[in-house]
Amino acid sequence: MSFNIRPAEPRDCPAIAGLIKELAIYEKLGDQAKATAEDIERELFGPNPVPKALVAETPQGIVGFALYFYNFSTFTGRPGVYLEDLFVQPEHRGKGIGKQLFIEVGKVAQINNFTRLEWAVLDWNEPSIDFYKAFGAKAMADWTTYRLDGEALANLA
Amino acid sequence: MSFNIRPAEPRDCPAIAGLIKELAIYEKLGDQAKATAEDIERELFGPNPVPKALVAETPQGIVGFALYFYNFSTFTGRPGVYLEDLFVQPEHRGKGIGKQLFIEVGKVAQINNFTRLEWAVLDWNEPSIDFYKAFGAKAMADWTTYRLDGEALANLA
Repeated sequence: MSFNIRPAEPRDCPAIAGLIKELAIYEKLGDQAKATAEDIERELFGPNPVPKALVAETPQGIVGFALYFYNFSTFTGRPGVYLEDLFVQPEHRGKGIGKQLFIEVGKVAQINNFTRLEWAVLDWNEPSIDFYKAFGAKAMADWTTYRLDGEALANLA
Repeated sequence: MSFNIRPAEPRDCPAIAGLIKELAIYEKLGDQAKATAEDIERELFGPNPVPKALVAETPQGIVGFALYFYNFSTFTGRPGVYLEDLFVQPEHRGKGIGKQLFIEVGKVAQINNFTRLEWAVLDWNEPSIDFYKAFGAKAMADWTTYRLDGEALANLA
């Protein structure tokens, strides 16, 4: 089956929102996925967007996506690409779609002369860890991400 | 001793580059800190900058800084603030400078109606972990960050 990787367009946002929900359910975090198609369209296509997205399109529609933004390393002194989400519907796996999405995100880093491509994986998600290690990815295992949100963020200042 | 937190200006970049190096040495990663003052000035003050920075200024000069950028959550559908670096010189600690830098970064998230403030800490860095936990931060302990850089990134596409 043929597929095409291309930048997301506004008409793709309902499909992207649906795939985000599917990914969240796969990650056992479905209750945390609150973003609507309207949220995704506003953030991807409003003024000064932070995120960018690619979609994998087949004759049956959008079956996968990658969403990323630019981060920054004070050590290298250059931005990088942070891959927030990469997802292909289970019934469309094994055809190289996820690999091509990942490569296209990597090209964004290469074209911009960025120094890093980074992302996070749940520790139990062995299929994803194996997928990424095959590209030579290294685990930043001695770092832990911390988060302030909700009441704690509201109470900070 | 008095201090003032303000947005970084181009003239601060040599001091910021020096503090980045000091932080890297504290993190036992001094050999990885390659960014020059020119790199930092280009990235903070060039077109479409990704990072933003605050500095802590005292009568003795710049003694601390916070550098951040915007990230994005597909679950909340909103950007957030990612705090890449927060550092106060050891001889200026205990005066509330780090706390005020952190609060000011939190205000950026609040003012923009962002949903999250995130950052990463080395697992052995207990003083920092204690500092952040006092604000109600939670460890995203079941996620590991992965990175592709150097040859592996160059070879991806």
